[in-house]
Amino acid sequence: MAKANANAIVAQSGGPTCVINSSVCGVIQEAAKTKKIGRVLAAHDGILGVLKEEIFDASAEKASVIEALKRTPAAAMGSCRYKLKSLDQAQSDFDRVLDVFKAHEIRYFFYAGGNDSMDTADKVNKLAAQRGYELVCIGIPKTIDNDLAYTDHCPGFGSVAKYVATCAMEAGRDNEALSTFDTCSIVEVMGRNAGWIAAASGLATREPQDAPHLIYMPEAAFTFEQLVRDVKEVYREFRRVFIIVGEGLKDEKGNYITEETAGFGNDAFGHAQLGGVAEMLKNVIEKNAGVKARWNKLGTQQRSSMHFASLTDINEAYMCGKHAVKAAMSGVNGKMITLVRDKGAKYKCTTGFAELKDVANGEKKVPKEFINEKGNHITEACRRYVGPLIKGEAPITVGKDGLPVYVRLAKKWVEKKLPRYL
Amino acid sequence: MAKANANAIVAQSGGPTCVINSSVCGVIQEAAKTKKIGRVLAAHDGILGVLKEEIFDASAEKASVIEALKRTPAAAMGSCRYKLKSLDQAQSDFDRVLDVFKAHEIRYFFYAGGNDSMDTADKVNKLAAQRGYELVCIGIPKTIDNDLAYTDHCPGFGSVAKYVATCAMEAGRDNEALSTFDTCSIVEVMGRNAGWIAAASGLATREPQDAPHLIYMPEAAFTFEQLVRDVKEVYREFRRVFIIVGEGLKDEKGNYITEETAGFGNDAFGHAQLGGVAEMLKNVIEKNAGVKARWNKLGTQQRSSMHFASLTDINEAYMCGKHAVKAAMSGVNGKMITLVRDKGAKYKCTTGFAELKDVANGEKKVPKEFINEKGNHITEACRRYVGPLIKGEAPITVGKDGLPVYVRLAKKWVEKKLPRYL
Repeated sequence: MAKANANAIVAQSGGPTCVINSSVCGVIQEAAKTKKIGRVLAAHDGILGVLKEEIFDASAEKASVIEALKRTPAAAMGSCRYKLKSLDQAQSDFDRVLDVFKAHEIRYFFYAGGNDSMDTADKVNKLAAQRGYELVCIGIPKTIDNDLAYTDHCPGFGSVAKYVATCAMEAGRDNEALSTFDTCSIVEVMGRNAGWIAAASGLATREPQDAPHLIYMPEAAFTFEQLVRDVKEVYREFRRVFIIVGEGLKDEKGNYITEETAGFGNDAFGHAQLGGVAEMLKNVIEKNAGVKARWNKLGTQQRSSMHFASLTDINEAYMCGKHAVKAAMSGVNGKMITLVRDKGAKYKCTTGFAELKDVANGEKKVPKEFINEKGNHITEACRRYVGPLIKGEAPITVGKDGLPVYVRLAKKWVEKKLPRYL
Repeated sequence: MAKANANAIVAQSGGPTCVINSSVCGVIQEAAKTKKIGRVLAAHDGILGVLKEEIFDASAEKASVIEALKRTPAAAMGSCRYKLKSLDQAQSDFDRVLDVFKAHEIRYFFYAGGNDSMDTADKVNKLAAQRGYELVCIGIPKTIDNDLAYTDHCPGFGSVAKYVATCAMEAGRDNEALSTFDTCSIVEVMGRNAGWIAAASGLATREPQDAPHLIYMPEAAFTFEQLVRDVKEVYREFRRVFIIVGEGLKDEKGNYITEETAGFGNDAFGHAQLGGVAEMLKNVIEKNAGVKARWNKLGTQQRSSMHFASLTDINEAYMCGKHAVKAAMSGVNGKMITLVRDKGAKYKCTTGFAELKDVANGEKKVPKEFINEKGNHITEACRRYVGPLIKGEAPITVGKDGLPVYVRLAKKWVEKKLPRYL
């Protein structure tokens, strides 16, 4: 544990979710309760804010605003996809991070993000140890993709799962109503390498006639021949076809069935930014299955739909933030908080720990036993896994104008002490 | 008024909405109250169900299921985009409609739809008069596009308006959070010729920094030069850009800036089915404004998002259905129910009538005074017009599994009496 009254810094990283604000709310509220932390600072736009020394005082925010973060989507502190420059280089980004931490007496680093962020936290932590700078780094899991290893599931996933399943129900009813015209509907959802979000939509299929009839995930090798066969089969049975497709479909050789890797299409982590899978499916279905098709692309809406988020997800995200502070206070370091599901029949979830470096290098895909034999829908085992994560309603505050009320932070900036870096 | 105890038929037409089921609920419940109507029959898949004699007994549905239609999206009776074949041809579809009406002693025709449907209702009505068949035809307005003339607004619009404005807020916060990476976000919404849905998103801009920063509607001539200028200007001010774009953008000559008119892309009414506007904007913005962009296409989700519908819209749709029956009972014929807004400062809405043929030939676009001078956002007058329509929360029933509960009709089929036609 770092010395008393040192400051903490909290940062949000990667793609926003409905509940990453709930996690930082947990950090800020728990930190205020311990009398051992000075101020909780916040990095603006994730690790970029540390590098640029763009830091504000989260402890100075109104308590009511911090509380309202539990019902505010996206990342209120700002986020980024900046990949820190090598630890091996003479003047590395990692050195800068430590310099900023030192300048602001930061001894606790709470970082909410996915595996790239855990890698960053791990490297910062190791460099601090190497340089003899007392620092506690705790990771807080966050990703709608649900692909972090060592945790039963990830905060952010439950809400997107609920939203995507609800969209499948609603757009599914639309497809059902107008099946004489738009016979096939395709909805493209996120999930680069892991099909968790697509899989979650399967919860909407309470009975066979319910959408989605077909779910395609990156984990099941995709062929256009099977697509056409599947569509024809569903059409014969229901005279309509509703498909959920993950953006990262792969062929039998493991290659993406579409790639937009040129120009702006690459993101800084080197992943190919995918798009257009649904449109490609539409064209193939119309041409080869002879059925008129249309498509929706939920895009960033799926990860920001606070107005129908999962209360379980919100509460667990909060718990992760809170337990990150508790862990730091009790001498834990270099770990990410994990969600641990009880073995019992009734869903119960507590927290545990995983090594930051293990999480950084891991990835959790949808297992074989969660995908049906045909590779086009989910199994009961998958329903049992995802089912509890979407439960619980979390009504939002609605203004007099009929629209949601979401807060913004006041961002009382901390004075810069170092020369400009980025 | 038709003779006592004759049957009524109700049908749903065109693109589904969140509230067209509320309208038919109003018809069925009000018809049950009058003792003058025999059974309320329902045409399966709109007018197609009449032609095919696929009719079920709506009066035989459970009262609780009919009531639950008020919270069930899409079109529970089924809909279609079938355009009836000419009245001038020897054996026309219109003759068949009358034959089916006669065979099932149908003397009241309640048709919920847009202007094409009002045209159908008008022609059926005139043919009936010509043939001396006593028939009452009443239209019930329905369209998310809000483009029907002679009515202040259309049932279905308030809910899509609320949803799209909420999406702009939420995906807008996502854009704000990750502006260092995905600097520009574009959301494509429906609206072929009228920009009402795009315009409604402007309610989300409570203060200038709020998304959407730019709104492009078919009513304002679109140029890529202006797009690039607008994006650069917004970027300079906020370091991020959030755009709502209607699917039917037109250039200065009134041509769509994209057209997919080949093959399945034509719908039966001869409108071009549009798509890909958002992607086209993304490419231009990345190339010419130098800003990384991404896009969402809400598609059918925007017209089926019952989970966050407008209570005002639901109630008004119900009122239209109810008043259609009341009108028929009081001797009105050949009219569509309209929504009439009080002149007073406080929003109040009652119903009135318009001639079916007038509605059939009319179209209401977003007027000039609702669009700002630059043609890229809405005015205060537009906010005053749309604002009241989205108000009121309408919580849905959520099942034990955490997902919405939407009903399906039992559809007790009425025995066919005529030879097969379609």
